[in-house]
Amino acid sequence: MKARVYVTLKNGVLDPQGKAIHHALEGLGFGGVADVRAGKMIELDLADSITDADLDAMCRALLANTVIENYRIERGA
Amino acid sequence: MKARVYVTLKNGVLDPQGKAIHHALEGLGFGGVADVRAGKMIELDLADSITDADLDAMCRALLANTVIENYRIERGA
Repeated sequence: MKARVYVTLKNGVLDPQGKAIHHALEGLGFGGVADVRAGKMIELDLADSITDADLDAMCRALLANTVIENYRIERGA
Repeated sequence: MKARVYVTLKNGVLDPQGKAIHHALEGLGFGGVADVRAGKMIELDLADSITDADLDAMCRALLANTVIENYRIERGA
């Protein structure tokens, strides 16, 4: 079974990576970009025995830093 | 208008970050993980004048390295 975890910085947390991307886009002549936020996507190939609670525990223990990051889990087929 | 760009490594490209995450999950006692691939998610807040072609150009010019990475664009409201 495949699962995807999307990790994003919480609102209000400074995002230097996103700022750098924004600045670089402007430098390349791409206007009309108001804001850029950078996040992570982690694709996991899991055994079918892994429950939603297991996946949530993985996110809390390792994949996301819940002090400054939100995470969203998307389970696939 | 919001748009999200998902950047993933192409199949066959080594993913040391994914390997490190996999190893760390096993070290923490999470079994049942067959494979982990790490990718990026970039959230853009765009002016309505930005077309799909503009967004594609941004991906090719900066957001993804198309030699080793695939990208997928998801436009929101």
